[in-house]
Amino acid sequence: MKFTANKSDLMAGVGIAIRAVPSHTTMKILECILIEAKGSEIILTANDMEMGIETRVKAGVEVPGTVAVDARMFSEIIRKLPDEIVTFMSDSDYHILIKCGKAKFSIGGKSGEEFTYLPPVEAEECVTVSQFTLKSVIQETIFSVAANENNKVMTGELFEIRGDIFRVVALDGHRIAIRRVALKETFENRKVIVPGKTLLDMSRILTGEMDDLVHIYFAKNHIAFEIPGTKMVSRLIDGEYFNIDQMISGDYETKITVNRTLLLSCVDRATLFVREGDKKPIIFELADQEMHLSIESPLGAMDESLDVAKEGKDMVIGFNPRLMLDALKAISDENVTIYLVNPKAPCFIKDDEMSYTYLVLPVNFIR
Amino acid sequence: MKFTANKSDLMAGVGIAIRAVPSHTTMKILECILIEAKGSEIILTANDMEMGIETRVKAGVEVPGTVAVDARMFSEIIRKLPDEIVTFMSDSDYHILIKCGKAKFSIGGKSGEEFTYLPPVEAEECVTVSQFTLKSVIQETIFSVAANENNKVMTGELFEIRGDIFRVVALDGHRIAIRRVALKETFENRKVIVPGKTLLDMSRILTGEMDDLVHIYFAKNHIAFEIPGTKMVSRLIDGEYFNIDQMISGDYETKITVNRTLLLSCVDRATLFVREGDKKPIIFELADQEMHLSIESPLGAMDESLDVAKEGKDMVIGFNPRLMLDALKAISDENVTIYLVNPKAPCFIKDDEMSYTYLVLPVNFIR
Repeated sequence: MKFTANKSDLMAGVGIAIRAVPSHTTMKILECILIEAKGSEIILTANDMEMGIETRVKAGVEVPGTVAVDARMFSEIIRKLPDEIVTFMSDSDYHILIKCGKAKFSIGGKSGEEFTYLPPVEAEECVTVSQFTLKSVIQETIFSVAANENNKVMTGELFEIRGDIFRVVALDGHRIAIRRVALKETFENRKVIVPGKTLLDMSRILTGEMDDLVHIYFAKNHIAFEIPGTKMVSRLIDGEYFNIDQMISGDYETKITVNRTLLLSCVDRATLFVREGDKKPIIFELADQEMHLSIESPLGAMDESLDVAKEGKDMVIGFNPRLMLDALKAISDENVTIYLVNPKAPCFIKDDEMSYTYLVLPVNFIR
Repeated sequence: MKFTANKSDLMAGVGIAIRAVPSHTTMKILECILIEAKGSEIILTANDMEMGIETRVKAGVEVPGTVAVDARMFSEIIRKLPDEIVTFMSDSDYHILIKCGKAKFSIGGKSGEEFTYLPPVEAEECVTVSQFTLKSVIQETIFSVAANENNKVMTGELFEIRGDIFRVVALDGHRIAIRRVALKETFENRKVIVPGKTLLDMSRILTGEMDDLVHIYFAKNHIAFEIPGTKMVSRLIDGEYFNIDQMISGDYETKITVNRTLLLSCVDRATLFVREGDKKPIIFELADQEMHLSIESPLGAMDESLDVAKEGKDMVIGFNPRLMLDALKAISDENVTIYLVNPKAPCFIKDDEMSYTYLVLPVNFIR
């Protein structure tokens, strides 16, 4: 096998494929990127058995062929090359020779026979959105998936299609994050649970541009994402997701609107008094058109008042400041509206169009 | 005690003082910054018993006084404040109240009675250089001090004054880094060993500007650095430094001049094949006007040829690529000149004016 490619093109391709290389594995072949040279391109494939990525790089192929190469070593070599044309060769023993400028590298490769290719995806549906949209909805919800694996379903995000609405949900038992986007067409109703890690990796590959598209393919046990030159296939998480609509329906007693940046800065300051393992809440005290925020812990105390526009009853309610902070950071509106029922019931932060809904459970406290 | 100060001035001052707060200590008082309000400023002092920093911040002092405050908590609070005027108050029980905008913080302070002030420095000599010079000579040598404490002297840098020459030396048993600057005046000969940590912290406080000055005070057991508003005092390391001149004197058999960036990139690529604990050398093979560089390890192999201007004998010599890389990175000249004696003797990289000298020991190898 022999091909030539641009260093920068190759670097970009390796940077994408390496996201599917697991950081810890006992299976040596999973630490590899498979390189296939054919036609006028090379295909780089990596697969951690849960999620796989295939990406194409323009190349001058002199001798077509296939070889598997240690992903980290290959990536480091490419990164350190001068910005010139790279010549890549491998022989029948899978010895690899990489030349660029005056530099020559030789490393060992593998046949790739043991390599697991991406599973074929028999798509039942394809939904297309902009890369901006998919990247945003992931980034604005992913922090709410559960960090530990006790409940596998919570480590993923619900991707739900209902008519022309695409809804993404993440929850961890203390909070829920929901983003809702309108699609250009109407689709069959569909619900799948996508691993959080898959989405995090995908969000880093997406450009975030309005004009760039991403096709999302839904299959029975898999989801696939396709952007120009790159395809990512991931297993879905088995199981039934929570009934979200039940959790977010219902009335409110108090509604407040407040400047998001001011509230965010204040809640951020409150996090100074929270230490790992101790659950001191920030207390929101609503009276008239003012919200008094305070926190007290063995480390010290903080309090601050913010002007708010309030409808409904006065109320005193406590929250974990870190959960409140995450939600406020995920919103970009100038003002946010918070809906409260009582000090034991979750609060909702949502906009009128319900393009976002953040639910945060309150924390009990004694004054 | 009560004062007001700008958030940004306060942040800058705390950012400087906190460098003398140890990250691990059993003495709670060392985790504090001492705040003294008097006249039209506050003085922030921190001291880890080896090195102390005192820095002044312009303030409106209403009630003069002194209080010690946990450095990290104080720094975090100031950082998260809005960019406005900060009011700081402490009462007779050393309770501290910090107000800024609508935010109010209360934290516990300490009397500061146990606090160790900076030791008085009876300067025997004061040498003044630009902050640019001091910052540069530290940054260009500090990587060569020994990381482990087996030989205390090696963890520091030699600061040597000889007439109008200021020389800074660092070595770790495998290499030596030397920088030499001409002073504007002539001083008495002097040699002190300054702790590497002190110098690293000082280099981060220095502006690096040609027009900003730093005064270096030499005393019996201490060295002090003074820049506008800030004074740093450090203990010196006891002991006799190595006889450097003996090590760097002597003739050479081969002299090569090579483009620094090309050599650096090549040596950097060679580091890919070095793993923790294994000492594979990069081999420099000099023949005619070409230098062939190669490395071979269980991870793979690399080789490359560079054009050089050579005087003297052909030679084959091996180096630890990381040590060679550090030296090449610390130089900014377009070309470097390397002096070689034989494959068992150290190589020197130095300029004609000897403003820098880097010595790297070779590594034995079998071909």
